[in-house]
Amino acid sequence: MSGRFITLEGGEGAGKSSNLAWLAERLRDAGVPVTVTREPGGTDLAERIRQVLLDPGPEAMDDTTELLLVFAARAQHLAALIRPALARGEWVLCDRFMDATWAYQGAGRGLDRERIAVLERLVLQGLTPDRTLLFDVPVAEGLARAGKRSRPDRIEREQAAFFERVRQCYLERATGEPDRFRVVDAGVGLDQVRAQLENHLQEMLQWR
Amino acid sequence: MSGRFITLEGGEGAGKSSNLAWLAERLRDAGVPVTVTREPGGTDLAERIRQVLLDPGPEAMDDTTELLLVFAARAQHLAALIRPALARGEWVLCDRFMDATWAYQGAGRGLDRERIAVLERLVLQGLTPDRTLLFDVPVAEGLARAGKRSRPDRIEREQAAFFERVRQCYLERATGEPDRFRVVDAGVGLDQVRAQLENHLQEMLQWR
Repeated sequence: MSGRFITLEGGEGAGKSSNLAWLAERLRDAGVPVTVTREPGGTDLAERIRQVLLDPGPEAMDDTTELLLVFAARAQHLAALIRPALARGEWVLCDRFMDATWAYQGAGRGLDRERIAVLERLVLQGLTPDRTLLFDVPVAEGLARAGKRSRPDRIEREQAAFFERVRQCYLERATGEPDRFRVVDAGVGLDQVRAQLENHLQEMLQWR
Repeated sequence: MSGRFITLEGGEGAGKSSNLAWLAERLRDAGVPVTVTREPGGTDLAERIRQVLLDPGPEAMDDTTELLLVFAARAQHLAALIRPALARGEWVLCDRFMDATWAYQGAGRGLDRERIAVLERLVLQGLTPDRTLLFDVPVAEGLARAGKRSRPDRIEREQAAFFERVRQCYLERATGEPDRFRVVDAGVGLDQVRAQLENHLQEMLQWR
């Protein structure tokens, strides 16, 4: 049997990373073999590419270079980790995936949408997550939470308008693909977030 | 006035790198503003991507990852060095460029030609070298020369059959684009190579 591919998406401070560990644990408790990973990165080689993306040095990175590096890391991640794990029947939980490219590079940074579409076809070859959990939170609240956590990195220093475009893109994608997406209202207390996740978890466990 | 874009191509041990410095010097003597560069690499950021390509670590690099990294380095090289130099009216002498991707990744490693074509369109946006000097040498002789020079790297350890495919691809491309290519018989003594280059140099100087 083939596994399931579940992605978690959302803006800064939406809590998806901390809830990912909880979801993985709940799935394991239910007897599901789980692989947890993230993008960009997920394998040693993909993480090296991530390092270039996050810390490119003083030279201004060209937009097309940025896109190609994002997809180079994704191609490696798919070949060396995601596709093999799915073939073994595991459920792959991935912190950000293709929707993040549309939201951050496409809507956020305004990179050419046709280029993103070309690279999506070339690298994904039709692979789509079985389920995408979108952690949605108002931008100001998400940024305040993220700011408390650590020194802001290059991406986090970008303007609030950027994150507004990111959020709207995510919400539009969720509206456009209601079978794949489940939107988690992450602007509430942890108990209420977990209650929503529990519902989505039970729905996914019906797949078995 | 816009500059000129001149690429040097060829297999291992064909002497293109050592003759590139000589060509640059001859052009400067003739009053031409010259920028010398190479691929993959050419800028700090592109060289960092080159490092990942040449020394990926123990993890097997996926073919698509390799192609995307090659083109990521090229996009950066074009944006940060080649296009600005051409816009300043300089002549750019580049040690390997797009033809090397067709020869090494396409013919040599057998990577999907349609993917290479897609990425070529996406990254080059129609830019073609004004002149490409192909340093051609029989494979066995080229490998013997390259072997004398230094410890063979990952690429150089590949089989002779690989380099035969690389050579044939280069020669076919030269035949297919006779206006752009000049083939240098590099299997002869240095004086005779320089005599050929001098002819090609004089032809290029007519462009001014």
